[in-house]
Amino acid sequence: MRIIIIGASGTLGSKVTAALKDKHEVITAGSKSGDLRVDITSPESIEAFYKKAGNFDVLVSVTGSGHFGPLSSMTPTDFKKGIDSKLMGQVNLVLIGQHYINSKGSFTLTSGILATDPVLYGANLSAVNGGLNSFVIAAAIGLENGVRINAISPGVVEDSPQYFDAFPGHVPVTMDRVVAGYIRSVLGAGTGQVIEIF
Amino acid sequence: MRIIIIGASGTLGSKVTAALKDKHEVITAGSKSGDLRVDITSPESIEAFYKKAGNFDVLVSVTGSGHFGPLSSMTPTDFKKGIDSKLMGQVNLVLIGQHYINSKGSFTLTSGILATDPVLYGANLSAVNGGLNSFVIAAAIGLENGVRINAISPGVVEDSPQYFDAFPGHVPVTMDRVVAGYIRSVLGAGTGQVIEIF
Repeated sequence: MRIIIIGASGTLGSKVTAALKDKHEVITAGSKSGDLRVDITSPESIEAFYKKAGNFDVLVSVTGSGHFGPLSSMTPTDFKKGIDSKLMGQVNLVLIGQHYINSKGSFTLTSGILATDPVLYGANLSAVNGGLNSFVIAAAIGLENGVRINAISPGVVEDSPQYFDAFPGHVPVTMDRVVAGYIRSVLGAGTGQVIEIF
Repeated sequence: MRIIIIGASGTLGSKVTAALKDKHEVITAGSKSGDLRVDITSPESIEAFYKKAGNFDVLVSVTGSGHFGPLSSMTPTDFKKGIDSKLMGQVNLVLIGQHYINSKGSFTLTSGILATDPVLYGANLSAVNGGLNSFVIAAAIGLENGVRINAISPGVVEDSPQYFDAFPGHVPVTMDRVVAGYIRSVLGAGTGQVIEIF
């Protein structure tokens, strides 16, 4: 299959790329590195990116950021960061990408444990991840030509110890389990699933 | 208590207002009617609205709209409508309102059944409602001074037959049950709850 991985240079994205590249044609993409460049906060950039990429079977998005900080000082501008990047960025990859993806293709987006299991400082990412999960279950029944869509919702990953203090009592998940979630979405047959890895 | 109801002139808002106004000081607000005007898509308008409203104990938001239509023709601009209005509008009522609300006050937002139970054409509102539900569980642990927050997630209401066709097989919920959800959030002691009425 022809697989595009956005965020392929990240902690998670590089492992997902490594797991898929031997048996598939993988095109890496990112805001600053990769075979193709794309700024997911710009619909125009996404449109140009798909035009360059050409036909593809699978889009895996392991990208998008949000604001992390105390609610008491969180502003609408802070909040908008995650909305524009991790939420609308990934949603727009699907809204625009549905017109470029091959029939029976699939989208795999990345949400996260904060959708259902909040931590202090995480209100923006909770909203973003919850929005993504609900988008995926709805988009699955709206996508045409047999195109599938799932979200991977990982907990704190063992390879990111810098986040451990912000997630007290969370048991870090192994990178192998998280990568397996992406493989299940890409190579499996499920759609409209939120694949929780925690 | 001093209770502000935003969207007080709507199908739902007018019933919630009627249920609370006898025993409480209710201030109605909306984009086009009410004691106070506010455009929830504008943080500046929300800030000015709170400055005018003065101290209050309870904010009930029964407002916000989204895009409803086929995924195949849904654009980033369509999607942004619900994000800016029903999602960011209500979130910003909390982010800004936390600096004006009395201690031990409460926020009650409105999400909806599409967060967990999607229908064709509903991808935007699914994302918006899912985002709101997850925001509420996270904001509940970040709000200070004993301030509470909950979301009411109603199904299709019996008073809105114009939506029945878009929700095939959904059993409409009675207005009494929906209003009871708001009362439970406002007069009860719960926080971080998604009160599902369906």
